[in-house]
Amino acid sequence: MKNNIPERVVSKMMDGDYFSQWLGIEIISIHEGSCSLSMKVRKEMLNGFGIAHGGISFSLADSALAFASNSHNKKSLVLDASMSFTTPVKMDDTLIATAQEVNLTRRTGIYNVMVTNQDQKLVAAFKGIVFRKEEEWFPDAP
Amino acid sequence: MKNNIPERVVSKMMDGDYFSQWLGIEIISIHEGSCSLSMKVRKEMLNGFGIAHGGISFSLADSALAFASNSHNKKSLVLDASMSFTTPVKMDDTLIATAQEVNLTRRTGIYNVMVTNQDQKLVAAFKGIVFRKEEEWFPDAP
Amino acid sequence: MKNNIPERVVSKMMDGDYFSQWLGIEIISIHEGSCSLSMKVRKEMLNGFGIAHGGISFSLADSALAFASNSHNKKSLVLDASMSFTTPVKMDDTLIATAQEVNLTRRTGIYNVMVTNQDQKLVAAFKGIVFRKEEEWFPDAP
Amino acid sequence: MKNNIPERVVSKMMDGDYFSQWLGIEIISIHEGSCSLSMKVRKEMLNGFGIAHGGISFSLADSALAFASNSHNKKSLVLDASMSFTTPVKMDDTLIATAQEVNLTRRTGIYNVMVTNQDQKLVAAFKGIVFRKEEEWFPDAP
Repeated sequence: MKNNIPERVVSKMMDGDYFSQWLGIEIISIHEGSCSLSMKVRKEMLNGFGIAHGGISFSLADSALAFASNSHNKKSLVLDASMSFTTPVKMDDTLIATAQEVNLTRRTGIYNVMVTNQDQKLVAAFKGIVFRKEEEWFPDAP
Repeated sequence: MKNNIPERVVSKMMDGDYFSQWLGIEIISIHEGSCSLSMKVRKEMLNGFGIAHGGISFSLADSALAFASNSHNKKSLVLDASMSFTTPVKMDDTLIATAQEVNLTRRTGIYNVMVTNQDQKLVAAFKGIVFRKEEEWFPDAP
Repeated sequence: MKNNIPERVVSKMMDGDYFSQWLGIEIISIHEGSCSLSMKVRKEMLNGFGIAHGGISFSLADSALAFASNSHNKKSLVLDASMSFTTPVKMDDTLIATAQEVNLTRRTGIYNVMVTNQDQKLVAAFKGIVFRKEEEWFPDAP
Repeated sequence: MKNNIPERVVSKMMDGDYFSQWLGIEIISIHEGSCSLSMKVRKEMLNGFGIAHGGISFSLADSALAFASNSHNKKSLVLDASMSFTTPVKMDDTLIATAQEVNLTRRTGIYNVMVTNQDQKLVAAFKGIVFRKEEEWFPDAP
């Protein structure tokens, strides 16, 4: 069944994605071209201002982008990503990243990822572009 | 002595920067407006492709940006950053991030950060803009 | 009436916006925090590949961002913007840029702008962050 | 002679680059992977704030990127670019854009472009990534 390819791809990716595991990322939903993830901010994710390091929100968004873009069964690598930081993230905050495909061509894909906190406040807005390789995660998928 | 303010600021920031500590970041050099950091890529930093998660290079560059921009003794927060990924980063690679100030106004600063590996190959190019608050790290500094 | 402030601001901006005039930009709609513009691609907008210069789509999106962000009656200047180019734009194409506010704080605003052609195909995706000054376009507005 | 390929490519590009012509762009220098351009800001380039429209600095930088990246004789198209705006640009200002290659692979190139005014003040910092096609400008070049 083609329909469960997104789940199978993300499950396979997550198995070896030790950094997403360290972040404590949980998958809320995954579909072709979109993805929603959550994670909780721990003390070891803070920076010198006592708030979450910018790399934490970026990493969560980057994982969401990776899962959303690879969901089409073609191996996709990030070429460029940018993030605007809007609200400081604190310890024990629960972040949710929602990746949405805004464009897909044979070789590239563009994604917006919004990261919100438990108060539905936007903490960061992310835009990324991926390069799509010919190689597939599951070559035998229908 | 004004001259050691950059070191004092970064030392104070690093003390509470648990995530940079987790990353294993070491400070190679810090001056007003510039900074050089190194870190070694460990297994728990890898993603589902078996290479370093994009968030790792970003986090290293973001720390370099934070240290370089705060070196002027004014608390500075990242507004927006973008990163282009050029070369996959592997386990055991040693990364060096070099942040250079390209512009500074009363309220904003712009920084380029280059991340290279042990073969002096560029793995990621980063550009970030910070907002500079009035608040100082060491209000009594000369 | 507060409700027509967005129109009044954009009308005032457009009066002196000689470059948007040169581009032939027409205002489809303007509301607080959002804006939709159209323009037609002319021969003098092409680059050496015989397609529209990247600066054309960017300029259209930048105008949409400027109008959407200034619609709140506070003078707002772009700090940083990024654009992903997805589809070549040809002569005689009609472009539509739609700016949507994704976040607004006292000092900053974040906007996504999508640029599509007459076939509703995305040609470019844009994200921008503005700095909001205290100064107002219409100080006496209710 | 391979050495004059950059000049030949840019000359060919400029011939059909009606928008760079409209901008009044002049080529200061062009080498493999780098390029320097100048232009003067005219009244029809201003926006509603009475300063140069953000699209003007972007367009100048985008042309510099296009010339620098195509100088290798391989047709290269911009995938994504970001620009930080640091100083307002005024009418009659003379802008200089300097593009520098920061990385080149078989399929992609990364470039930084700095835009300064006649007082050597940075007005905008730009980073762009291009996709390199197999197609050449001069297939018979040595």
